[in-house]
Amino acid sequence: MEQVQVHSYERIDDLGCKGYRIIQNPKLFCFGMDAVLLSHFAEVKEGEMVLDLGTGTGILPILLEAKTKGRYFIGVEIQKESVDLARRSVLLNNLSHKIRIDEGDLTKGDQQYERSSFDVIVSNPPYVQFQGGLKNMDLAKSIARHEVVCTLEDVIRVASLLLKVSGRFYMVHRPQRLTEIITLLRQYRLEPKRMRLVHPMVNKEPNMVLIEAVRYGKAMLQVSPPLIVYHQEGGYTKEIYDIYGMEPR
Amino acid sequence: MEQVQVHSYERIDDLGCKGYRIIQNPKLFCFGMDAVLLSHFAEVKEGEMVLDLGTGTGILPILLEAKTKGRYFIGVEIQKESVDLARRSVLLNNLSHKIRIDEGDLTKGDQQYERSSFDVIVSNPPYVQFQGGLKNMDLAKSIARHEVVCTLEDVIRVASLLLKVSGRFYMVHRPQRLTEIITLLRQYRLEPKRMRLVHPMVNKEPNMVLIEAVRYGKAMLQVSPPLIVYHQEGGYTKEIYDIYGMEPR
Repeated sequence: MEQVQVHSYERIDDLGCKGYRIIQNPKLFCFGMDAVLLSHFAEVKEGEMVLDLGTGTGILPILLEAKTKGRYFIGVEIQKESVDLARRSVLLNNLSHKIRIDEGDLTKGDQQYERSSFDVIVSNPPYVQFQGGLKNMDLAKSIARHEVVCTLEDVIRVASLLLKVSGRFYMVHRPQRLTEIITLLRQYRLEPKRMRLVHPMVNKEPNMVLIEAVRYGKAMLQVSPPLIVYHQEGGYTKEIYDIYGMEPR
Repeated sequence: MEQVQVHSYERIDDLGCKGYRIIQNPKLFCFGMDAVLLSHFAEVKEGEMVLDLGTGTGILPILLEAKTKGRYFIGVEIQKESVDLARRSVLLNNLSHKIRIDEGDLTKGDQQYERSSFDVIVSNPPYVQFQGGLKNMDLAKSIARHEVVCTLEDVIRVASLLLKVSGRFYMVHRPQRLTEIITLLRQYRLEPKRMRLVHPMVNKEPNMVLIEAVRYGKAMLQVSPPLIVYHQEGGYTKEIYDIYGMEPR
């Protein structure tokens, strides 16, 4: 067991999966349900090489390592503080042999990694188009939420460059941007193959879309049943409890 | 009340709406839930001019006349037998002053109608890509179901040509073809603005997608709550009863 430094302003959360934990700094961006649902939606097969574009706290490589038999997981992140946090979480879980966190600008991912070298790429990118002006905003959170340092097109372009032929790309994003997502995926030869909309309740509009695209895949989109988060009476649905590995209360 | 001829092999169905009825020939294509849901999804404002591309039995103009304050409704149809049926249904409902059924090839719609002249265009086009070979198939039903005489691209291209700027296009189709639908709409400057998936049950994949696109609209897709057809215990949901104007049993 390696020594891992945790600062007093940081917190350690249990991931409810193989005893893994994660170090987070509430002043930076903390992971949300998006990342957990994406880790459940993404399929990683035995022996596959996985890259997470914009890994933040490292939540996706850690959850995917816990849930799948992937060979090796790399998370690339531009923010130094997040890189440091994510690296310490990897150490905390004794996962240095399976997960590596790289500092880097994902928009230049094709300079940092070999082209056509990954089986799977995942991303939980910033959702909001950058309108300019960051005054009174927290830079670290802004970079995670707004397209300040990378756009949707950057993420899709780089995923396409770094995936093997027939490699799979998994992303979570906002349904409002679905037209742009689908158009860009097609443009970069990532064919949308599976989509799932996440609705807070069965009678509410979705607030997330999970999408799988295959490099040079054949056209034919499978739309899954809606993923409903809360019962109308309140409380999580059974599927959400299952995904979080918890027992319904 | 005009005299309307109905043949012995035809049937007359009540539409549960303003007492309107429709003449159908079971040997040809009979309308399905798709048309009813599309007529509910489409928005027609007072005084608007509406065109239905591939009107079949005329179900969409008749339902839209019943449900909205549109000024005039035209349905264009390539199959002579369907044109004849639809015209007799218009007469049967005394709607000749509001609805006209034209015989015509929708793929040449820009020769038959003035460009940029409609406020609203609706279509329930054939869903299935034509793979060639019609032996042992019924031609009338094939034309309604398969892209024999028009493709998805034809429908979208012609809708774009015939809609006014900011005019609205409403279509029902198969979710499997959503990528193609969205890509083509964008290509022809019809921006997807609203989408609703229709699921047989809440835990089933959708079998229809309803989509609204606006000519030269701003990018931003609103995805609606799922439209669920059946309860898991069996029987229609309240929303389906409401759309059909029936009381739940």
